[in-house]
Amino acid sequence: MADSVRADDRAAEEFLQVAKAARKAATVLAPLPRAPKDAALRAIADALLGRTEEIVAANEKDVARARESGTSEAMIDRLRLDAGRVAAIAEAVRQVADLPDPVGEVVRGSTLPNGLELRQIRVPLGVVGMIYEGRPNVTVDAAALCLKSGNAALLRGSSSAYESNTALVRVMRDALAGTEVPQDAVQLVPGTDRESARRLMRARGLVDVLIPRGGASLINSVVEESTVPVIETGVGNCHVYVDAEADLDIAVEILVNAKTQRPSVCNAAETFLVHEAVAEEFLPRALRALGAAGVTVHGDKRVLEIAAGVPDGAKVVEATEDDFYAEYLSLDIAAAVVGSLDEAVEHIRTYGSAHTDAIVTRSMANARRFVAMVDSAAVAVNASTRFTDGGEFGFGAEIGISTQKLHARGPMGLPELTSTKWVYTGEGHLRTSSGTVIAGR
Amino acid sequence: MADSVRADDRAAEEFLQVAKAARKAATVLAPLPRAPKDAALRAIADALLGRTEEIVAANEKDVARARESGTSEAMIDRLRLDAGRVAAIAEAVRQVADLPDPVGEVVRGSTLPNGLELRQIRVPLGVVGMIYEGRPNVTVDAAALCLKSGNAALLRGSSSAYESNTALVRVMRDALAGTEVPQDAVQLVPGTDRESARRLMRARGLVDVLIPRGGASLINSVVEESTVPVIETGVGNCHVYVDAEADLDIAVEILVNAKTQRPSVCNAAETFLVHEAVAEEFLPRALRALGAAGVTVHGDKRVLEIAAGVPDGAKVVEATEDDFYAEYLSLDIAAAVVGSLDEAVEHIRTYGSAHTDAIVTRSMANARRFVAMVDSAAVAVNASTRFTDGGEFGFGAEIGISTQKLHARGPMGLPELTSTKWVYTGEGHLRTSSGTVIAGR
Repeated sequence: MADSVRADDRAAEEFLQVAKAARKAATVLAPLPRAPKDAALRAIADALLGRTEEIVAANEKDVARARESGTSEAMIDRLRLDAGRVAAIAEAVRQVADLPDPVGEVVRGSTLPNGLELRQIRVPLGVVGMIYEGRPNVTVDAAALCLKSGNAALLRGSSSAYESNTALVRVMRDALAGTEVPQDAVQLVPGTDRESARRLMRARGLVDVLIPRGGASLINSVVEESTVPVIETGVGNCHVYVDAEADLDIAVEILVNAKTQRPSVCNAAETFLVHEAVAEEFLPRALRALGAAGVTVHGDKRVLEIAAGVPDGAKVVEATEDDFYAEYLSLDIAAAVVGSLDEAVEHIRTYGSAHTDAIVTRSMANARRFVAMVDSAAVAVNASTRFTDGGEFGFGAEIGISTQKLHARGPMGLPELTSTKWVYTGEGHLRTSSGTVIAGR
Repeated sequence: MADSVRADDRAAEEFLQVAKAARKAATVLAPLPRAPKDAALRAIADALLGRTEEIVAANEKDVARARESGTSEAMIDRLRLDAGRVAAIAEAVRQVADLPDPVGEVVRGSTLPNGLELRQIRVPLGVVGMIYEGRPNVTVDAAALCLKSGNAALLRGSSSAYESNTALVRVMRDALAGTEVPQDAVQLVPGTDRESARRLMRARGLVDVLIPRGGASLINSVVEESTVPVIETGVGNCHVYVDAEADLDIAVEILVNAKTQRPSVCNAAETFLVHEAVAEEFLPRALRALGAAGVTVHGDKRVLEIAAGVPDGAKVVEATEDDFYAEYLSLDIAAAVVGSLDEAVEHIRTYGSAHTDAIVTRSMANARRFVAMVDSAAVAVNASTRFTDGGEFGFGAEIGISTQKLHARGPMGLPELTSTKWVYTGEGHLRTSSGTVIAGR
């Protein structure tokens, strides 16, 4: 007991050193203009390529450990790095270097009536904490986006990728040694236990924002425990609503695309709703198309009734209430028949995660009402939910997709990793109860 | 004990009903365009004027209670409402009605290369919680700003203003009865005990954002306990740094203005720092001017040494470390001599609250470095810190001054009470691994 307390104290002290070093590095990094930041990113890309063998060797230890513990081949594939994947990671860093620098952008500005020159300027957030699961490429992506936006990165990946993450951070820090960006701008949080994540969540004053990336349980625990401000990302229970006035050909294709083009991602559809006026015509066609794509449908009573007459369609099972809350991330989809557009909106409000919800309709009025009433980060009209993505939106890079309303909503690019600062410049401007007076005049 | 548990349960249930009613009202309010919101605000202004007697009578009960409990006359003056003050409150509501509506503004928009029309549109946050102290006018100001920006307001004022707040909210809700804005868009949180504030802080999912307005201890307790996202406001330990290359005439006037023009507000100066190269010339002049204004200076050793030779200057006492952290809100100011601009920046980083910090200098290079290195919501160059204010910045209204980096930083006007929503419109747009395909083509 006493030993473990001492170990905890040591770990807490070690974390504090790391966080303070990040804070200090952030102070040096923040005022750097674009050129030295881009040079540092290119040095990182070169180092990742040059030390591919070392990275792959570290990754092999993680893969071996995962295999011993009986991890699925799908998960092991997500974890695995080979020379091609390391090259792709390095290329992504180069692409971040090519993006414009958000820092220093004048967001608003004017000369006030009293002559003060007022400017609102983008500045870095400071120290950005990331807690994430899964693929080791996130370690490099997150570090690159943070550096480009002038922030120090404190990274806490999953224990399953510990050797890989350690090697990637070592290579990045070595690369920074020859640049103007301080090495401590990229650091791993010490430890991979629950307590190590908790320390990051409670580091208010040292860490400016925490971005969790992963499943709903990770994100909920961060939101619940963190005193550092959090940007929630990524949980997506996306809906496709097929309106009474939908083009049903288009509706079937959008539904199948939204569900099956990449089922494991947050902007894939997890529920579809169909207006009762077209349910009998739409459902047989949708069930056949979904069945051909290998999808299982979790339907409400009315879906089951209609499905009973479609023997060659998708497998249909009865939906529980939980199905309507579910983010399957698999070839499953919940389905319900609704009596009106407003009922669809109400369903989405009740069960959705406010990520992306789509309507398929030919009616201007219905599209307008759906867009106004659905309170989600993104609303798609006659388009697949899969387009809610920083790359598709033209951001060039994405640190995650925010499903909260404060600070950033939807895909987050580099500007979303910044704050702003007001600067006003006068020539001795004083405020008095009767207006501005200039000193010495 | 059992009785008090039952009372707690009842209070919790009562809070839940109020919060759910706010949520429902927010859903109706959010899609309303400007005209019905402005009509509702004007109805509120009329009602406040028409029922002035009722409001003043309620306020008299608060004032009598405050007097009985020995509250200072200064505090009682902040609490007191008379016909003139009620008229000013009503006029402020009319001014909010005259401001442009932030909701619906297209923040960004483009047609993507694949033809999707992408728009980022301002939308209300939803339900805004306010926890505040002191003056009852905040009850009406906050409600008006929330309504204008399409948000429902859940208000939790101080117990000292309970009768006044209850009357003001009753009058506002009665006025809403004849408008398209639901009455439940303006509600007081039931109760004035600590637990009633705590319930608001824990209402994640029902309340979208919590804005505390008041002293440091209120704001810290909200930040610590809230699971609802918080926007911190208002604590201001503002600095004036007098550079080696300052125009000392201007510096004296800016310092006196920043400290004394209204000492009780968050953008008043609480510390001044002077470069050692000009300390011996500047300090005697500054001390005389501050003394004439009745200011007490809490100086470091070097300030004390120089002050010893200025018998006709301000009262000077030795500063403790706490003085440099203090937000006096009174005719006191901390003071230190620094060896360099960088030492001034380091002092501000260490002790400041990142609200507003000013430099007085004739040097472009020094101004540039100070602006780049000071990480505060606002940086003033050759101007008083008193200009960090929504009114001065031309926002027309202000809900508070954010000292945090996420979502909003500095004075918050109506746009800061909104979030955004992405809307994309296609004609059957599908995402494939080889690019966009249009359904049915």
